[in-house]
Amino acid sequence: MTTSIAIFDTTLRDGTQGEGISLSADDKIKIARKLNALGVHYIEGGIPGSNGKDIEFFHRAKTYSWSSKLTAFGSTRRKDSRAEQDISLNRMIEAQVPAATLVGKSWDFHVHTALQTTLEENLAMIGDSIAYLKQAGLEVMLDAEHFFDGYKHNPEYARAVLRRAEEAGVDWIVMCDTNGGSLPQEIAEIVTSAVQTVKVKLGIHTHNDCELAVANALAAVQAGALQVQGTINGYGERCGNANLCSIIPTLQLKMNYDVLPQDQLKDLTSVARYVSEIANVHMPVNQPYVGNAAFAHKGGIHVSAIMKDSRTYEHIEPELVGNTQRILVSELAGQSNVLSKAAQLGYELDATNPETRSIIDRIKELEHQGYQFEGADASLELLLRKATGQFQDAFTFESFKIITDMASDDSSCSEAIVKLMIDEETILTVAEGNGPVNALDNALRKALVRHYPDIEHMHLTDYKVRVLDENDTTAAKVRVLIESTNFGSTWSTVGVSSNVIEASWEALVDSFRYALIGKEKQSLLSERKEQLGIVNH
Amino acid sequence: MTTSIAIFDTTLRDGTQGEGISLSADDKIKIARKLNALGVHYIEGGIPGSNGKDIEFFHRAKTYSWSSKLTAFGSTRRKDSRAEQDISLNRMIEAQVPAATLVGKSWDFHVHTALQTTLEENLAMIGDSIAYLKQAGLEVMLDAEHFFDGYKHNPEYARAVLRRAEEAGVDWIVMCDTNGGSLPQEIAEIVTSAVQTVKVKLGIHTHNDCELAVANALAAVQAGALQVQGTINGYGERCGNANLCSIIPTLQLKMNYDVLPQDQLKDLTSVARYVSEIANVHMPVNQPYVGNAAFAHKGGIHVSAIMKDSRTYEHIEPELVGNTQRILVSELAGQSNVLSKAAQLGYELDATNPETRSIIDRIKELEHQGYQFEGADASLELLLRKATGQFQDAFTFESFKIITDMASDDSSCSEAIVKLMIDEETILTVAEGNGPVNALDNALRKALVRHYPDIEHMHLTDYKVRVLDENDTTAAKVRVLIESTNFGSTWSTVGVSSNVIEASWEALVDSFRYALIGKEKQSLLSERKEQLGIVNH
Repeated sequence: MTTSIAIFDTTLRDGTQGEGISLSADDKIKIARKLNALGVHYIEGGIPGSNGKDIEFFHRAKTYSWSSKLTAFGSTRRKDSRAEQDISLNRMIEAQVPAATLVGKSWDFHVHTALQTTLEENLAMIGDSIAYLKQAGLEVMLDAEHFFDGYKHNPEYARAVLRRAEEAGVDWIVMCDTNGGSLPQEIAEIVTSAVQTVKVKLGIHTHNDCELAVANALAAVQAGALQVQGTINGYGERCGNANLCSIIPTLQLKMNYDVLPQDQLKDLTSVARYVSEIANVHMPVNQPYVGNAAFAHKGGIHVSAIMKDSRTYEHIEPELVGNTQRILVSELAGQSNVLSKAAQLGYELDATNPETRSIIDRIKELEHQGYQFEGADASLELLLRKATGQFQDAFTFESFKIITDMASDDSSCSEAIVKLMIDEETILTVAEGNGPVNALDNALRKALVRHYPDIEHMHLTDYKVRVLDENDTTAAKVRVLIESTNFGSTWSTVGVSSNVIEASWEALVDSFRYALIGKEKQSLLSERKEQLGIVNH
Repeated sequence: MTTSIAIFDTTLRDGTQGEGISLSADDKIKIARKLNALGVHYIEGGIPGSNGKDIEFFHRAKTYSWSSKLTAFGSTRRKDSRAEQDISLNRMIEAQVPAATLVGKSWDFHVHTALQTTLEENLAMIGDSIAYLKQAGLEVMLDAEHFFDGYKHNPEYARAVLRRAEEAGVDWIVMCDTNGGSLPQEIAEIVTSAVQTVKVKLGIHTHNDCELAVANALAAVQAGALQVQGTINGYGERCGNANLCSIIPTLQLKMNYDVLPQDQLKDLTSVARYVSEIANVHMPVNQPYVGNAAFAHKGGIHVSAIMKDSRTYEHIEPELVGNTQRILVSELAGQSNVLSKAAQLGYELDATNPETRSIIDRIKELEHQGYQFEGADASLELLLRKATGQFQDAFTFESFKIITDMASDDSSCSEAIVKLMIDEETILTVAEGNGPVNALDNALRKALVRHYPDIEHMHLTDYKVRVLDENDTTAAKVRVLIESTNFGSTWSTVGVSSNVIEASWEALVDSFRYALIGKEKQSLLSERKEQLGIVNH
């Protein structure tokens, strides 16, 4: 008999406290729908009435049906007042959601310093507020703020908070490590004590200030907590909240708790990436379970072992969470990386063939010059195609010229002139841009779009410049990495030169070339177009 | 009596296995010098002889003196061969460093699958290799790869590895959770068993695939491990290695272990940010302890409580790790930073003066635009001088024009034309360069050198480009940082624009301007010239 753990997502409330995270009401609805499909048990939508976005969110939420329980967040009643007259509590009821989360103080220091009231009045605030919301028919959770710091300083008072909440009829008490400063062993001991103090179901809410939010949540579950509060990708105030994308698979795949249906766990990676897109926060490639590099292998010894058996360097099958294995090609890598990468791209190279040897030598030579193919699959594929005679260039480059002007009034302008040939026809285009590379991008697109109209849908999604040898400063070699997208497929290209414009041009041209060989994958593109059409209307 | 924990940094070896991380020999030396100053006990430099960079690193490392012990990494001898004839082992000895880390298998599955040899031969490989390196006078550590997975599958064999290493005279056995799939409780149990199996000192090496690398390292220390291996910012293969920037302060400030001298712990934030700059990897704002948002407060309730007492929402004093509190919504943000930085530069600003307020507003506005003055003191000093009327421009900028050509034979050329005025005289110069910024640098120098001959001795020592908003790709804003040197004094400047040329120009011009106001510091320069003379001959 496995124990069930309830997942409480607060991406839409606590997650938005993170620096640089701002979600519109529409963003919130989109994310909530994804969370609902993923199967989390509670979705905290926001603080009803606190701002326009949250009002709109709760209003629009009524037009959807939900498997997850939507919850509204608010504080216990104000000191020295009555619950029935508390605007915040009444707004939680008016939100018309099935559950409510009340935040209440459980650290005596905070009662004195932040609330500036008495310990007894704080207990009354907690009890009255719970009773009032229960009376309104809500499932009520108490987020016991600073519970662990409170317990460490005054365990009797922290326990009194638990008891008062239980007496008032609360459904859950969620113990919060609000400052994120507790250690797993402390969490385990204090949760154990709480389990002995009250009979009501307990939950855990941790923060990542010591990089221990996930470990602390797991320790609490082992000690008896039945609900975990956290956010997608760990977004939240300061160092963030506990990351549900790490907690859910660990609880389910490694600790044998019952969390999500197994086939919904496979949506985890796509949900994580979707939320990162909507929140417009770059997802670290190395994010556990769901990151792009979470199952990426670079070291030569690792890669040759992975080829024999992927369990040698993978702790789970990436497919369980909807992620995939990747083989990176780099200077650290041996021949085995290149061969397996080529195989993944559909090129079966024979290691004993002298032609294969010369391809590998060419890659090593380019890496020595500063190229890095681990982040540039498309450039590697073009190189393999050229080497194996499977590449026909969609155009012939003739020349380009870029003029950048800057006047004393700080007005600057870049113009690019590109000359190339397609089917014996010379094409000359000029375009402006807010920098030389942007101008070049625009001019090249203009030159190609007449012959290859599909190119219009392709766009660049990332542009990175890395100075390779800083000792040469402005004369130094630079590496440019470009990422591009077309109908949901993404590819990366690389260029290296001591001239940043030339390096950018190289990566840019490779990116367009790769999009154009994509024409051979036309059926796939059409399929994707249709999918996009379906999704969009 | 507090227990000492040895910190073993493998940023330069395991850290470079991370996707997108590539360090030149020069980068490695720079990072190693910072780690040495921070006071870590071991610095793993790389794999001697495996590639040109690592050879150069170990070669150049000999010219410095080290408080940390440099270590070389390599595998146990090849199967069915002799340690004395093993190229990899001999290269470790030839690296002439005091310590060596041998990686050896401790999971029977890996011995069969990856090494394809017998369990007994693997034990012999471990024993022979340790004995050979010990004989050569090295302090020897065994990185017992996959120790935890191995122990879970075949505890007897994992223990046999420990015993064989101990018999061979190893100084440390470091238990590795190579696949990053273990949980803290498993780690604690298995380390406890290892402590009972051998008397030799034990260490811990964890990976972050479950977001538990830090918790696992701490659990191992509590169970008796005396060395922690990890990397700065947690760089490393797949999801990364254990993050030393989180482990060090937690061990020292919360668990009362003796790790670094207290005043060196204050360098942690600057070391973390420095390594992120050198590796050109964006540091997440929410990184624990050292991130820019680690002590940033956004929520209204939090901010008002923080104003009353910062312990209400901070788990430690940020200054202990060299970080600072930031209030994201408050107007008071950053004022003390600016005042203390101005004081450092010799400008005593009065916080109550409205002029000071306007300087702070200007700096905040620029930071909002993407400027970063932490790494650009010279630009900040120029700004303070302008604001306080202590700046006279050595020249007036009129305009520049840059032309970059590229032909189909891949020959490219950049020419820059600069127009400026000095003492009512219009100066027009043109210069070539192997890129637009290099051409601009040359043209500007040519324009100034006739009036300011000292400029000839100044040169640029570092040039960095960072894309600020990756979503806008080639039209994105970039930040350029330039470091310059003149007679041993070094300064840094910054420029921001959506046009990389304009941002470079801004930083370049600030750099020359700063060199020119340096004329007022002539006596200081003369002094430095003399010092330089002494150092150089």
